[in-house]
Amino acid sequence: MQYSPLLEELISKLQYLPGVGKKTAQRMAFALLGGDRRRGEELAAAVNAAMSGIKRCSCCRNYSDEDICPICSSVKRQNEMVLCVVENPSDVAIIEQTGQFFGTYFVLHGKISPLEGIGPEDIGLDRLETLLSERKYTEVIIALNSSVEGNMTSFMITKLAQKYNISVTTPSRGIPVGSELDAMDESTLTYSFTNRKNI
Amino acid sequence: MQYSPLLEELISKLQYLPGVGKKTAQRMAFALLGGDRRRGEELAAAVNAAMSGIKRCSCCRNYSDEDICPICSSVKRQNEMVLCVVENPSDVAIIEQTGQFFGTYFVLHGKISPLEGIGPEDIGLDRLETLLSERKYTEVIIALNSSVEGNMTSFMITKLAQKYNISVTTPSRGIPVGSELDAMDESTLTYSFTNRKNI
Repeated sequence: MQYSPLLEELISKLQYLPGVGKKTAQRMAFALLGGDRRRGEELAAAVNAAMSGIKRCSCCRNYSDEDICPICSSVKRQNEMVLCVVENPSDVAIIEQTGQFFGTYFVLHGKISPLEGIGPEDIGLDRLETLLSERKYTEVIIALNSSVEGNMTSFMITKLAQKYNISVTTPSRGIPVGSELDAMDESTLTYSFTNRKNI
Repeated sequence: MQYSPLLEELISKLQYLPGVGKKTAQRMAFALLGGDRRRGEELAAAVNAAMSGIKRCSCCRNYSDEDICPICSSVKRQNEMVLCVVENPSDVAIIEQTGQFFGTYFVLHGKISPLEGIGPEDIGLDRLETLLSERKYTEVIIALNSSVEGNMTSFMITKLAQKYNISVTTPSRGIPVGSELDAMDESTLTYSFTNRKNI
């Protein structure tokens, strides 16, 4: 059936959201229309405010309402001379949840991919080099996902850090804490045995 | 972690959508921020336009951009003296997809539920009675889902229709076309055997 033009438009635009197909969009549209309409208006206002108000922190490139994000502007965190390089803003959120990292971040918003035409400037490596040259970091933690592109990006950042005599680390990989041996895939198990540690 | 206020607001308001929890809302928010921001603005505009522009057809109570919806204002459909009563606007959409019904609809937007304080006026039964008294319908199809509330609502509509000597029908229930006998639940099988038809 053809819905009314306004309803068609709503259903089509809701499909901009990730993981939302036509069926889900229809369900969402009917829920918005059938419920308190002010909720829909609040949703629209929040989307609009976020689209125009959230920019990239000019220091770490993480999403921020201000020109410099709260983490970068915190003196306490600036004094920790450890920089953690991540791929996405969501990675920052997840690392912050652990409450175990007190340094600052640098967000790439992607990884190097010659096939997709994503070069060093697109992920801010020029900006990263400026940071590394200006501040006396003692350590750079490269927390990227392991993939061909991730490893390539990791390699380039390692080179950059070495140029300024900064030690480079990466989070350990292996069997997740609490997991059973027999639930592990072969590659993880192979890796964790090859990289076994003294107790 | 605490997100920035604008991002927190976006994530919280996205959870107004049905089936969207915190994790999904975060993923949606990051997708909107990371993609073309115009898409987010288009989504917000579509939601706003729908919230303020979509009302209930003053004839059948289905969602409509106009005062009278296209189905109710179609002379061809007005001439079919069959009225189909459904619970939700989505039911109209799904019946229209079959292309087999040529009459008009009446949308209840709910069912009678004394427990939730939903009475006959809340689902427009007064408006339905006016319709039944004014137009010379030959048949009312009651297409509600079967539940205690659905059956109660169905009973009241049947009484109304009988008052104006209109015959009442309901879509047949039984084994879905193409389904296997051994895939059926006991109640459906019991029902379809009790209500068997001559071939």
